[in-house]
Amino acid sequence: VSKSTAGNFLEDFRVGVRHVHASPRTVTTGDAALYTALYGSRFAVQSAQTFAEGCGYWAAPIDDLLVFHIVFGKSVADISRNAVANLGYAECQFMTAVYPDDTLSAESEVIGVKENSNRETGVVAVRTTGINQRGETVLRFARWVMVKKRDAFATIEGPPPPALMSLVEPRVLGSAVPVLGAYDRVLAGSPYLFDDYAVGERIDHRDGMTVEEAEHQLAARLYQNTAQVHFNAHAEAQGRFGRRLVYGGHVMSLARALSFNGLANAFHLAAINGGRHVAPLFAGDTVYAWSEVKEKADVPGRRDIGVMRIVTRATKNIESASYPAEDGGPDKPGVILELDYWAVIPR
Amino acid sequence: VSKSTAGNFLEDFRVGVRHVHASPRTVTTGDAALYTALYGSRFAVQSAQTFAEGCGYWAAPIDDLLVFHIVFGKSVADISRNAVANLGYAECQFMTAVYPDDTLSAESEVIGVKENSNRETGVVAVRTTGINQRGETVLRFARWVMVKKRDAFATIEGPPPPALMSLVEPRVLGSAVPVLGAYDRVLAGSPYLFDDYAVGERIDHRDGMTVEEAEHQLAARLYQNTAQVHFNAHAEAQGRFGRRLVYGGHVMSLARALSFNGLANAFHLAAINGGRHVAPLFAGDTVYAWSEVKEKADVPGRRDIGVMRIVTRATKNIESASYPAEDGGPDKPGVILELDYWAVIPR
Amino acid sequence: VSKSTAGNFLEDFRVGVRHVHASPRTVTTGDAALYTALYGSRFAVQSAQTFAEGCGYWAAPIDDLLVFHIVFGKSVADISRNAVANLGYAECQFMTAVYPDDTLSAESEVIGVKENSNRETGVVAVRTTGINQRGETVLRFARWVMVKKRDAFATIEGPPPPALMSLVEPRVLGSAVPVLGAYDRVLAGSPYLFDDYAVGERIDHRDGMTVEEAEHQLAARLYQNTAQVHFNAHAEAQGRFGRRLVYGGHVMSLARALSFNGLANAFHLAAINGGRHVAPLFAGDTVYAWSEVKEKADVPGRRDIGVMRIVTRATKNIESASYPAEDGGPDKPGVILELDYWAVIPR
Repeated sequence: VSKSTAGNFLEDFRVGVRHVHASPRTVTTGDAALYTALYGSRFAVQSAQTFAEGCGYWAAPIDDLLVFHIVFGKSVADISRNAVANLGYAECQFMTAVYPDDTLSAESEVIGVKENSNRETGVVAVRTTGINQRGETVLRFARWVMVKKRDAFATIEGPPPPALMSLVEPRVLGSAVPVLGAYDRVLAGSPYLFDDYAVGERIDHRDGMTVEEAEHQLAARLYQNTAQVHFNAHAEAQGRFGRRLVYGGHVMSLARALSFNGLANAFHLAAINGGRHVAPLFAGDTVYAWSEVKEKADVPGRRDIGVMRIVTRATKNIESASYPAEDGGPDKPGVILELDYWAVIPR
Repeated sequence: VSKSTAGNFLEDFRVGVRHVHASPRTVTTGDAALYTALYGSRFAVQSAQTFAEGCGYWAAPIDDLLVFHIVFGKSVADISRNAVANLGYAECQFMTAVYPDDTLSAESEVIGVKENSNRETGVVAVRTTGINQRGETVLRFARWVMVKKRDAFATIEGPPPPALMSLVEPRVLGSAVPVLGAYDRVLAGSPYLFDDYAVGERIDHRDGMTVEEAEHQLAARLYQNTAQVHFNAHAEAQGRFGRRLVYGGHVMSLARALSFNGLANAFHLAAINGGRHVAPLFAGDTVYAWSEVKEKADVPGRRDIGVMRIVTRATKNIESASYPAEDGGPDKPGVILELDYWAVIPR
Repeated sequence: VSKSTAGNFLEDFRVGVRHVHASPRTVTTGDAALYTALYGSRFAVQSAQTFAEGCGYWAAPIDDLLVFHIVFGKSVADISRNAVANLGYAECQFMTAVYPDDTLSAESEVIGVKENSNRETGVVAVRTTGINQRGETVLRFARWVMVKKRDAFATIEGPPPPALMSLVEPRVLGSAVPVLGAYDRVLAGSPYLFDDYAVGERIDHRDGMTVEEAEHQLAARLYQNTAQVHFNAHAEAQGRFGRRLVYGGHVMSLARALSFNGLANAFHLAAINGGRHVAPLFAGDTVYAWSEVKEKADVPGRRDIGVMRIVTRATKNIESASYPAEDGGPDKPGVILELDYWAVIPR
């Protein structure tokens, strides 16, 4: 038996089996600094100790998407090492704030398996949970991955993956946010709070960011994500795209950082209703983003914050300015990411 | 009204108006590690806790130019988002040591506005201040930026920017440096102290450093600098240079790190008398540096330290070795930066 | 006399002279985060505070090779600034765990000098020691470097460098590892402990990692390694390879990180018996790795751990899968590194 592993193929997944992922990870201010260097994020709560403490946090919390990427990264070796494609996420909830020096571990339960009609690939769905050193769930999400079969003739036992879930309900949101004390809109970079946004409002985030190979590789390794497609130019020269593919989460973080220009007070991702990587991103491409406010909701028992359901779309090599005027949906040219999430914003 | 901002144009600046910049920033050992990785700086005071404490610091202070870049970065969204060019800095003073976990915020006061004869651009001058979490001024500087007008027919109200200031006076320097206790020249990397340098002495720093796109982008994002010209290859393909431009502060930090070879004991920038970006730097270029000692001065009340006025010039793709023998001033081919500063050096 | 230094040439080295290297360096969680981003290492002991404390460490220790690179980096300005080639390492022992906020300094004693028959170069051997802020030796190693002479006619006084040393003896190993308490193999990522490995066993680590210029430059600067050959594309265009050369230690760290897949519980490098850079690595190349278990040994007085002597070979642009079946020794095409080390693994 080889001591090294080629990872799990479709026929290795059994519904109900729980995979405890390797390499728990202490998140530090070093990781936060790298995250800033990779995306240039400017949300004041995550940027400044003083601002966060004024709000009621114990310290400046770790960026929600950095937590997501670390938990996601842990699952790759067990779940998606042999992935053909990440089909999407749903029911993602950020439940507990993560602070520097917290240690994250992760596990995933298989919730569905189904082979494709070609018998060479299939879809596995898992529910992944990120846990801190006190055993608290900090994050959970479901994801759907297209995975290769080792043996085309192998029999796959269901049940099949459930359909993409519906929206996360507003009433479960906000548990990672303290009751807000002081919130300085000038230092936060925008005068616009919950009441200032209208459902249907569209925001062009204006700026573009070009991605380099070294950047997305540093990012994916920081997350201990081992998916070969991001790192191995030698093998990928013979692969589907002929080159390395940027980790989809890198696009999510770029779009989120760009969205500061227009959503500076939407300081916390409370939930991701759904995320779809519509088209691949490669080094040398430039990412733009724009957002639409889809819904607004109260959080029961919270007068300090509201939640806005936002759909942020990232494009590549097409300025986002043209999209908000029409429906720049996922089928429009240049769109690479559609991210449907609930953001917490002060009232 | 759009929730995202296109930034201020020349006609938006009013003399006397104070802009409080967004996103206060806690500086950590993570930022310091990235700064080392970006420039390879080796000054012992900033590199080692033990060395710094021996000198009388509470901890290893954050590199002066990292503080400068963070404070400068905060000002970009309000002041220079629509800049055509950074014309220069002056009267820059580093007043208080910054330690890991200090939080920096910044504000700028407009001190002059004048349109150019083409009526499409003009010059705005601001005085920017960086403040720590105790309200102490850690840094202040003036800068001159050429900015676009939104509307060529708009009227600009003066008064015009003041001329570039004269030298910072030695008597105000050194407030960020404790009275030096032990200072180990062997560990610091050079036997040469204040008395060993002569006015007029020229030092070739010898080494060269090639810059990559990923490096200067990581740097500028670490500083939360949002100037599009550094990041957006897609838009810059149609821009003035046809490509991304390296943040001028990146060149300052490279030249300063290279200057360790010859100025290892000049461990602190007390002031920048003037900084000029003479020519642009692009990824793929190699930066060299050499320095000339222009003046030496006592610091009143301080027997432990003196200050040397140094002009460091950075070149691109031309070895600095040839410059010290002649006058490698800013008009010589290959010079990209002229940095005139006061450095603290033990006596 | 120039204040900047061109470094030592062969005739400057005297056997018995001790060089105390500049720039002591406090290692922080920021450095650890960058190390993760550069290599994607996943060993649980170094990754998670909780895991390390469960094992008996005070905190998550700094990766052994990061310690090696920092100590090595300090020696470059004095020892190998004018190196033609790093010939190899031997007798490297990791003696004390290094924790975040420890400060490392380094010194090297010259143990042999000999000129080559061409009289233009020669070999210098040094013994380098890394010391923490309490004066404890954390690391020591010998290395052999081919160095230029300043003057071909200069006379070189011996004695000549000793031959490459034999193996480090198992009885001196393990001092950096606490008596292991809990060790969770599931979280560590592998069920295989000391008794599960057989001498002669070969492990293909499967994955490949492509290296970018920005990555190896960030790494070498993080280690404050000043060797121009890694950084100066302008000068190296006229050099031996026509381009920048990747720091050999970068390959060691990549191979070590890749070896997690198959050696996840071999969590500590106790000693490097020998390291040889068989061929150069350049940006754009993809590194693969495979290992062979050469020996197994008890550590006197330790029932919790054993040591395995492993030879890890890194290849470039050739999948490692083909090597384990035959003898993929250093003379085989594509091999760039041969690293012979003792790893600690729980029993």
